Parts: sequence; structure tokens; C-alpha cells
Amino acid sequence: MLDSTSIDSLLKNNLPALGIDLGGTKIRAALVKDGRVVSQPRQIATPNGADNIIKGIVDLVQAFQKDGNEAQFGIAGVGIATAGIVDCNTGEILGSTGNLPGWSGTSLKKVIESQILLPVHVDNDANAAAYGEASARGLMHSNCVVAVTLGTGIGGGLVINGKMFRGAHWAGGEIGHLRLNLGNKRLCTCGLFDCWEAYGSGRGLAATGRDILSGLSAEQTPLAKDIEGLTTHAIVEAARNGDIVGKRILNMWHEHVAAGIASLAHILDPDLFVVTGGLADCVDFVLLQEMVVDRVLPRIGEKMTIHKSELEGLAGIIGAAQLVLDNLLDRIAV
Amino acid sequence: MLDSTSIDSLLKNNLPALGIDLGGTKIRAALVKDGRVVSQPRQIATPNGADNIIKGIVDLVQAFQKDGNEAQFGIAGVGIATAGIVDCNTGEILGSTGNLPGWSGTSLKKVIESQILLPVHVDNDANAAAYGEASARGLMHSNCVVAVTLGTGIGGGLVINGKMFRGAHWAGGEIGHLRLNLGNKRLCTCGLFDCWEAYGSGRGLAATGRDILSGLSAEQTPLAKDIEGLTTHAIVEAARNGDIVGKRILNMWHEHVAAGIASLAHILDPDLFVVTGGLADCVDFVLLQEMVVDRVLPRIGEKMTIHKSELEGLAGIIGAAQLVLDNLLDRIAV
Repeated sequence: MLDSTSIDSLLKNNLPALGIDLGGTKIRAALVKDGRVVSQPRQIATPNGADNIIKGIVDLVQAFQKDGNEAQFGIAGVGIATAGIVDCNTGEILGSTGNLPGWSGTSLKKVIESQILLPVHVDNDANAAAYGEASARGLMHSNCVVAVTLGTGIGGGLVINGKMFRGAHWAGGEIGHLRLNLGNKRLCTCGLFDCWEAYGSGRGLAATGRDILSGLSAEQTPLAKDIEGLTTHAIVEAARNGDIVGKRILNMWHEHVAAGIASLAHILDPDLFVVTGGLADCVDFVLLQEMVVDRVLPRIGEKMTIHKSELEGLAGIIGAAQLVLDNLLDRIAV
Repeated sequence: MLDSTSIDSLLKNNLPALGIDLGGTKIRAALVKDGRVVSQPRQIATPNGADNIIKGIVDLVQAFQKDGNEAQFGIAGVGIATAGIVDCNTGEILGSTGNLPGWSGTSLKKVIESQILLPVHVDNDANAAAYGEASARGLMHSNCVVAVTLGTGIGGGLVINGKMFRGAHWAGGEIGHLRLNLGNKRLCTCGLFDCWEAYGSGRGLAATGRDILSGLSAEQTPLAKDIEGLTTHAIVEAARNGDIVGKRILNMWHEHVAAGIASLAHILDPDLFVVTGGLADCVDFVLLQEMVVDRVLPRIGEKMTIHKSELEGLAGIIGAAQLVLDNLLDRIAV
């Protein structure tokens, strides 16, 4: 273990931290300083099984350590963003996720720290992305920043008064499962009905598409040619090519995204929302802002703004690295 | 103005603060110390117009000051809980409310401080109730406490890491307006559609009753005798007397209350929920807990508990008084 004097000297030298974003298909890593990526990222395909994932992470860390030795700089610590519910004190994965089978129960912080002799912080990936957005935008003194990750599912993270808000049992920010509808109309992959994710995610967009297309023929819209195999990509392409049914589906998806953001705005009244994830590119931000303002109390609508992430998929890496740096600073403060 | 030395001496003497709960029909006040009411409450009917309300508040404060002079104790400050959106730095009422016409724009803190020479803190009534619940339960070191006020409408307050969370523009905690349904099915009094309040409040319960009763005759249920004039009281009474339609309405209302709490649980994962307000007496807490656990992710459902307020309508008074005391302590700390 590092004692506080050596941590102090590491940070005084303004060393970078390594951020690692562990996804279902790839693991990406880069060095981060002052909320910005300061090295070329490295990435590997996500291996099968917990042991192989851990080996992959250690290999990545050692590659960056080798760079550091050659260029004569040190690394202050390693932050890891992973899917699932994480106990950030122990760095243990509490809740499993479909994308990483066998991952639940892994004592990730302990295992990695024993192999690389650097302080490690582990956090949920949507939390890390939110922290990365707040860091990169210089919003660590804001009251509340909400990050919404629109991808296959919907994730989220809340940064409140400059601190990551994780809830009382590490499960805060599961905004994808706020309930958008009554009457058990759509089953979510989590097993609950009518979650926001079942409407506003990529899967939700495709489901809305299938609802709207049912009964339509290929003469009416090219999307009706393969309703069962409908993809978000096909919907977005059709809408861009002027197909009126594609436009209608995309518009209804915007309404669903707006309804969830409106709920969050009433509960949290944040300084701003940042939208990230693979589907952020499909959002018409002017339309979304209008829709949300229409669906919130005037006092909230006057002030709220929704921004697109500008970090190009690096938010999780930046946030994970900043979290390990800020944890080290907190330790010195104590 | 008090300087920090005199504030210090007031607090060192462990003086009580006066909490005032300003409602649409009455204004109640009592002295509070250590999260508990320590005097007989006084109350007056809420007068018409901002000037008369202010005079009523000043009269109440002076009555307690007179008690203090006779019994030789001082009052550390005055906390006022009021409906509407409040700028807690300036103590100005930013957002108006139907129950208190002409109230918006009042610089309540400034006006009262100029007349009573005591520090005044003004806060939203649902926020004050949440802070009162957290104080009285000794939960000021918890991660997150959510208070849900079920009355004519639905209000709420979030205490995060022992601090009142008010959002970036003083409008946080407007949980009654999270969106529960799609399709613009029920208009809320705020002008938006499908707010939680339109389903889970007293008004929502009556609206659900009218929906279920439409087409039923007085032979099927006594509630059908006066569908237009249906009251929450009549529904609850009918259900208690075994009327199956009354029971059905009350059960659906529980589902609506549960759906909103489930959304909050996913976003905030709080230590606990406290339910307060006039309708808390109509809640079957065992049923509500079961319904919410059924509607949340297992990790969240395992840990979450929903409690009934035990403060018998005094939560706002206690919270407002604690807020002025804790603000004074913060000022000394600075």
C-alpha cells in the first residue's frame, strides 16, 4: 500500500491516472490529466470469463507503465469503469450484467491492486461517464449534473455538489428503470414492465418501430419489408431519406426520451443534462429540448439545457481516471 | 444583524428555534430543539393577502418571544415553511401557488427579519417536512432520505448527505410532477399531463374512482350514487365497509403511488422513504412495500423500506426550525 506521503508526492507531481472502460465487446484505456485524455488510447477485445478479463486489464496497465518508464513519468492510479452495480469502497462487483457473464462477485479492486501495485478505483460505467462529463466541462462545483447514456439500454449518473452520487446501496442513478407508462405494456430486459429503457433505448426505438409498422405494407414504407429484423440503423436511415413512417417512429422515440428527462428534471432540477452513448448521434437536440420544456413546470423549463457529449466515447475513461485521482486527494485531506 | 459571536453564544446556550408552517388554511408554530417540538403549538387561520399573512407570522413570533421573556429563555431563529418555490439564500418566494394568491414575489425573509430582529430561514414546505423527518429520525448522516407528502397534491423533499437538496434553480424535489403515464391521459392541476400527482394524490384517487365508477349503478356500489361529487373520504369509508368497488379503487391508487416510488427508488436508491401528508393514513404500508418491491430491480428492492411519518403533521415545523439552526451553525463554521 502507498502511504499518504507517497500519494501526496505522486499528485504534487501532477501525474496522470489511467482510465479503463470495460465494455461487453472491448476494453479501452488511456491516460488522463485535468479532465482530458493525454495519451493514445489502447484497446483489446473483451476476453471471455472473469480471469481472462482481469489478465487483459493487467496487460493494458503494464503497457502504459512501460510507456511511463521509457518516457520517465509515473501513473498515479488506475480507474476502472465497468457495467454492473459496484461497491466503490471495496471495488467488488455486486450486480451481474448480461454482457459480462460470471463477472458478479469479482473483487476487482483487490485483484488488480495485488498485481500492479497502484491504487485502483472501480465504478459503474454510467457513473464514470457522468463524472467524466462533469470533469471535462468544469462542472465540479455545480449543484447537479445528470448524464443520460442512450445505447442498447439507458444508463445514467448523477454528480451532486461535485461528488458522484451512488445512493445508499450503490444502485442510485439506475435512471433507465424509472417507470414511463402504466398498464404493463412493454417488458424491459430487466424483467420489469414499462421502464424508460423499454421505450427510450435503441431496443425501445426498434420496439416502437415494430408497433407503428404492424399492418403497414412495403408499398407504404420500405421499413415494412423486414419488421421482425428492424434495426435502429434502418429507422434512422429511412427517416433521413425522407420516409414519413421512419420520421414518425423517430419522433415518437424523441417523445419517449423527453418524457424520461422531464421526470428527472422535476426530481433533480439539474444545472444541465448531458446525453451520451451510441444513440446520442440520432438525437435532434433542438426538438428534444422543445419537447422537454413543453413537459416540465415553467420554472424548471426556463433554466434547463440538454447537451450532447463532446467526449466521443471517452467519458467513461476520463471519469474513471478522475475518480481515482479525486479519491487520492480525499485521502490526503483526511 | 447578528454577528458570529452572538450567534455562537445563542447556539452554545442550546436555544430552541421557532418553526412556522404556513399552509393554505392555517399557520402553525412551535419551538423546536434537537429535532423535537418543545412547546405547545400555536395556530391561526391563514389570513387573506400577503400583508396580512406577514402580520400573522410576526404576531406568532412575538407571542413566543413573550413566553421566552417570561420564562427567561431566548429564541435562536425563526424557520418558515411555505408552499411555492423559494430562493433559500434571499428567502424570496419565486413560484406562486394557487392556495396563497399574491404570495409570489414576497421577500419573506427580509420583511420578517426587519420586524423581529431574529435570523429567519424560509424554505419550501415539502423540503422542510423532509428535513424534519430526517432530523427527528436521526438520519442526518444518511446518504439519502426521500419524503413523499401525499395530500391534495404530491410534494416531496430530498435530504442528501445530511443537506437539503434543492436543485440548481430551487425547484428540485418536485416529485409530484414526474411523469407516470404516456398518451396525455390525465390533466394535472399544474397544466401538464400524466404527472404522478394526477394519479397518486387525493385528487388522483378521486379521479381513479370516477374512472372505475363510470357505468356502474347504485345497486352495484353505494359510491355510484354521487360520482361527480366523489370524495377520497367516501372511497376510503366504502373500502373499510367492505365495498368491493371501493376496495378496487383504493388498490389501484396504491399501484399508482407504488409506481412513482419505484421510479424514485431507481434514480436515488435512498436509505428510506417517509410518507407524510393527510393521505398517509389511507396507505396500507405492507401492501405498498410489496408493490414497490415487485416494481424495482432486486438489488434495490432488497434494501428499501417505506415508513409512515410519526410526526403527526409537525414535520414542516420541525424541519423549518432545524434548518434555521443548522444554517446558523454553518455560518459559524465559515
